[in-house]
Amino acid sequence: MIVYGVNPVLEALRAGAGRISRLHLREGKLSGRLREIVRLARQRGVPLRFEPPAILEKKASSPRHQGAVAELAEVEYRRLDDLLSTSPDLLLLVDGIEDPQNLGALIRTAEAAGVGGILLPDRHSCGITPAVVKASAGAALLTPIVQVGNLVQTLKKLKEAGFWSVGLDMEGATAPWELDDGLPLVLVVGSEHRGLRRLVKENCDFLVGLPMLGRVSSLNLSVAAGVLMYFVVWKRRFKP
Amino acid sequence: MIVYGVNPVLEALRAGAGRISRLHLREGKLSGRLREIVRLARQRGVPLRFEPPAILEKKASSPRHQGAVAELAEVEYRRLDDLLSTSPDLLLLVDGIEDPQNLGALIRTAEAAGVGGILLPDRHSCGITPAVVKASAGAALLTPIVQVGNLVQTLKKLKEAGFWSVGLDMEGATAPWELDDGLPLVLVVGSEHRGLRRLVKENCDFLVGLPMLGRVSSLNLSVAAGVLMYFVVWKRRFKP
Repeated sequence: MIVYGVNPVLEALRAGAGRISRLHLREGKLSGRLREIVRLARQRGVPLRFEPPAILEKKASSPRHQGAVAELAEVEYRRLDDLLSTSPDLLLLVDGIEDPQNLGALIRTAEAAGVGGILLPDRHSCGITPAVVKASAGAALLTPIVQVGNLVQTLKKLKEAGFWSVGLDMEGATAPWELDDGLPLVLVVGSEHRGLRRLVKENCDFLVGLPMLGRVSSLNLSVAAGVLMYFVVWKRRFKP
Repeated sequence: MIVYGVNPVLEALRAGAGRISRLHLREGKLSGRLREIVRLARQRGVPLRFEPPAILEKKASSPRHQGAVAELAEVEYRRLDDLLSTSPDLLLLVDGIEDPQNLGALIRTAEAAGVGGILLPDRHSCGITPAVVKASAGAALLTPIVQVGNLVQTLKKLKEAGFWSVGLDMEGATAPWELDDGLPLVLVVGSEHRGLRRLVKENCDFLVGLPMLGRVSSLNLSVAAGVLMYFVVWKRRFKP
């Protein structure tokens, strides 16, 4: 797998240097942030090559590499049982997101909000592609990712493990600040266009909506999910 | 100005029907949401034409019109003094955002969070283009927009009018839940890449950052701004 761009490569170096098999950097005078990449790569023993821009563009399959391309081992999906054995208290289940930008933005926010793992369906969903890694600012390399089959079965299994499921639904009756803060939670978000599927929604313990004070009827999925996640962060860690 | 796509056209009809000079809809069998557009247009006396997809594509300059294209009068920017005379208690000042997707997402969230007006610099910033209207799900037609010249002068003027300025800055020392909830606020967000400019930052009364609990160092701008806005909503309207 190829990751490119200054930020994603920096994040990959900081968090998963062991997974980088080779780094390619642009020849010539380096900016401060490219020098930081060189410093980290040397410190962590990552093989490094300086090459002409044309080679980087070919490696990245894109002109937007910003002078830095990393070759990584493929994302290793975790098993749900292994994830649960680490006793996470906040998970994110993402159903049917097909746009890598949206999936990456969700994973970036989830990692920043301390989510312990991301659950993705193995069908009808974007996988962890290089575009997702880039859109996530590297967070997709830092967060345990589990591919799951049947979502309803997965929610039932999580319930047995003590989780409460919270669906994000613009018509949900619960506000994010009303969620109980003591329970292990799995937050469930649906696709950009269709929202949560009926059976998934019926298997959620709570449906959370955000009050819409103006006249538009919904928010961007990644914005709404970010608001939900940060109210959980506040309630658990910062609420007096 | 042209607005296209089912949601933006619906929002334009619901909020600004008087500004639509003509609606173009796809010929043939209509989906439920296109029928809703027809119903609203007739109710509000908006001229309507059914046309072949090729005409719609030409009007929209895009194949992504989803069967609905509206011709609107240009966005009328408001004067700051006129906006202030309506006594808003929450404003959003957006400095140097160049990507229409990001600007649209910000305006969409701001409208939903009850922001009374959006202030945009008249230079080095994306204006209210059709792409912004579409990305905002129509919110850019529903929210007063003011173009301002010098941002520092604008912040000083707002201070004289009783506003406190809150800059969104990942290194800010104040958490969104710590903001005083009784003051008129202007939230200030900088560009996707550079954040707030030094002089703008120095003229903010508070700098708000979000705690990053994982290893990524920042959030998407529109996600972080959404979290900030919804903590203001909660504090002002819903906090017990």
